[in-house]
Amino acid sequence: MSHAVSPLAPQTYPDMPAIAGVRLTTAEAGIRYKGRTDVLYVALDEGTQVAGVFTRSRCPSAPVDWCRENLSGGAARALVVNSGNANAFTGLKGRDAVRLTAEIAAEAAGCRPGEVFLASTGVIGEPLDATKFRGVLADCAGRARPEGWQDAARAIMTTDTFPKVATRRVRLGDAEVVINGIAKGAGMIAPDMATMLSFVFTDAAIAAPVLQELLTSGTEKSFNCVTVDGDTSTSDTLLLFATGKAGGPAISRADDPALEPFRAALNDLLIELAQLVARDGEGARKLLTVEVTGAESDRSAHRIAMSIANSPLVKTAAAGEDANWGRVVMAVGKAGEPADRDRLAISFGDVRVAVQGARDPDYSEAAASAVMKKDEITVKVDIGLGDGTARVWTCDLTKAYVEINGDYRS
Amino acid sequence: MSHAVSPLAPQTYPDMPAIAGVRLTTAEAGIRYKGRTDVLYVALDEGTQVAGVFTRSRCPSAPVDWCRENLSGGAARALVVNSGNANAFTGLKGRDAVRLTAEIAAEAAGCRPGEVFLASTGVIGEPLDATKFRGVLADCAGRARPEGWQDAARAIMTTDTFPKVATRRVRLGDAEVVINGIAKGAGMIAPDMATMLSFVFTDAAIAAPVLQELLTSGTEKSFNCVTVDGDTSTSDTLLLFATGKAGGPAISRADDPALEPFRAALNDLLIELAQLVARDGEGARKLLTVEVTGAESDRSAHRIAMSIANSPLVKTAAAGEDANWGRVVMAVGKAGEPADRDRLAISFGDVRVAVQGARDPDYSEAAASAVMKKDEITVKVDIGLGDGTARVWTCDLTKAYVEINGDYRS
Repeated sequence: MSHAVSPLAPQTYPDMPAIAGVRLTTAEAGIRYKGRTDVLYVALDEGTQVAGVFTRSRCPSAPVDWCRENLSGGAARALVVNSGNANAFTGLKGRDAVRLTAEIAAEAAGCRPGEVFLASTGVIGEPLDATKFRGVLADCAGRARPEGWQDAARAIMTTDTFPKVATRRVRLGDAEVVINGIAKGAGMIAPDMATMLSFVFTDAAIAAPVLQELLTSGTEKSFNCVTVDGDTSTSDTLLLFATGKAGGPAISRADDPALEPFRAALNDLLIELAQLVARDGEGARKLLTVEVTGAESDRSAHRIAMSIANSPLVKTAAAGEDANWGRVVMAVGKAGEPADRDRLAISFGDVRVAVQGARDPDYSEAAASAVMKKDEITVKVDIGLGDGTARVWTCDLTKAYVEINGDYRS
Repeated sequence: MSHAVSPLAPQTYPDMPAIAGVRLTTAEAGIRYKGRTDVLYVALDEGTQVAGVFTRSRCPSAPVDWCRENLSGGAARALVVNSGNANAFTGLKGRDAVRLTAEIAAEAAGCRPGEVFLASTGVIGEPLDATKFRGVLADCAGRARPEGWQDAARAIMTTDTFPKVATRRVRLGDAEVVINGIAKGAGMIAPDMATMLSFVFTDAAIAAPVLQELLTSGTEKSFNCVTVDGDTSTSDTLLLFATGKAGGPAISRADDPALEPFRAALNDLLIELAQLVARDGEGARKLLTVEVTGAESDRSAHRIAMSIANSPLVKTAAAGEDANWGRVVMAVGKAGEPADRDRLAISFGDVRVAVQGARDPDYSEAAASAVMKKDEITVKVDIGLGDGTARVWTCDLTKAYVEINGDYRS
């Protein structure tokens, strides 16, 4: 199954610098796909700290359970990610497969299994044959090198049409540090965690509890603000690794003022990765940014924005380049949040189409249609009740989404 | 815009008997469509009692506001329904249009405007020119007759591909009474109220407060258990009218034992109408019945069932005839309700595909695929925690849904 690259893919990819203490490589383990890489192996130097955010699904995958359990140790030495099989809803076999994979990787990396972090993406419900990792991971450990970030992003793709990478360089105290992130995700994307999978690495020296605070709060305005189809994966995993190789004492307090530039750069990178996921939404032809203002609270604004972003009727209207603001009203109404029909104002881009509960007196179908023909459309809704704001991203709903998901397993 | 009749449409339509005290007719007011009826007028004899259930949208249409206000009177003499324009999000103009329509109808029916009930369905946000009803409704009042139920159901269609009617005959005390119902709805269908529009009539003598109790509780297991796309209309309206012409004293208490057969027949009719809506879901090729058992409560079971029924990935899998139970697990997981992955059991029809958190040891892809090829598929999920059950209906998600909704306004 191959699909044309999303028209919303970035025109250029950033050069991804090396990160001291991180070496990576990919392999073909033949888990499901033929003729493409399906394993990512990342070696992390001793002393690497780790934090994670996971799916809120009540039926998480075996690798998610594994990562959650081992996160308390705060230390990581290896990351193994495979595509093609999610090892989700595989019962006892799934737990056994996770343990065996960790043991094989630990032997290759020379560490404890509890220092190995795992993620799997692909079909749910099929047992994963972890014996396929034997040999492959030992070979990976020998080959791992500081370069190859795009290849890494490519190895973890499923229905993605382009690899997703982002990088930032920022000062942390006396040191200049680097943050690199990769992500995959195209469908089954919804909060809360909208990631599917994303892995972020830095050479900054930051203790695990501080990393966790940074990651949890950064997720709120990034991966938890993106949706493709409202469906939440069993496997969503976002991990942040800090090797500390940039030098300097480890930041041990989340309120350390020296951390602020790093926090801003990390948040920015997380937003970029989340947007890349929306840009590669299955069948996507348009990127929709939904901005809600004037809600009773930020939380209320977020719920209204998500109601709009998840509405099949809003998303099909976007696919049809139809400035159908009536459906936006519908989506506001069904959110269940405080709203007063007669105070609503709605714009597509800079064209206000509705105000005070009715069509804008100056409404121009031609101007609104011109906005809808663009690749990127901002839907702005002012609720007119308070100061709450939110911004989320999604894509349109096209026939290609149905096509991709109607024959995923076949 | 015309679409082929849904393959899930009933093979035959019931003969709809006359109901004493109810006369109806249709007309072409030219509101939006050309060459088809777009107005339903129903004359109700003096003494008719009425109850209603409406959309829970925070941005309801002007007709919904009107009906809610006038329901407290409990008395109805006329119903006017138009298709083509929902008169929703039309601000002050919408309120004026509703008032003018009611005044025109009241003059035609010889009653007060507050005894006129109104519903509109179609495009949102376009002002409705109520002056088009002048002449039309007076003419309708002269032509109304006891027959023509299918024509009535046809006049209120929008993207529906077939008219929806149902009838029951049942004893109520000494009398034999009739219940007739019509419905429309194909998209923007979700609880709570999944109706779009439905109108039910009986010649039983039942006081308005009792009617209201019957309707509210009957809705829970019928219209609130059907979803097409998870989008809730601003206009959903379900009205129940009782003329009392079948004779006998009016039932004045909801716990009157004589009422039980009537309640059962009404509930059955409401379920039939709700199913007809799912059968005509936009682009539908398959009717999905989702049955959840073993949840912690009925309420929890309902939420899980709705999470499955609203999942784009479950619905596209059904369209692709793919027994993708992994997506059912995903939808259970994202419902946020108590669930234990390792106790889940899932069947498609009578074929159990998963048990105790993993693929059924006896799983047969061929048997599961055979089920998926059918027009009607039951998805059964046992949560394994308690006694809570729920049953809801939906349809598959096809390219035709995207097509229909990608060019609705154009």
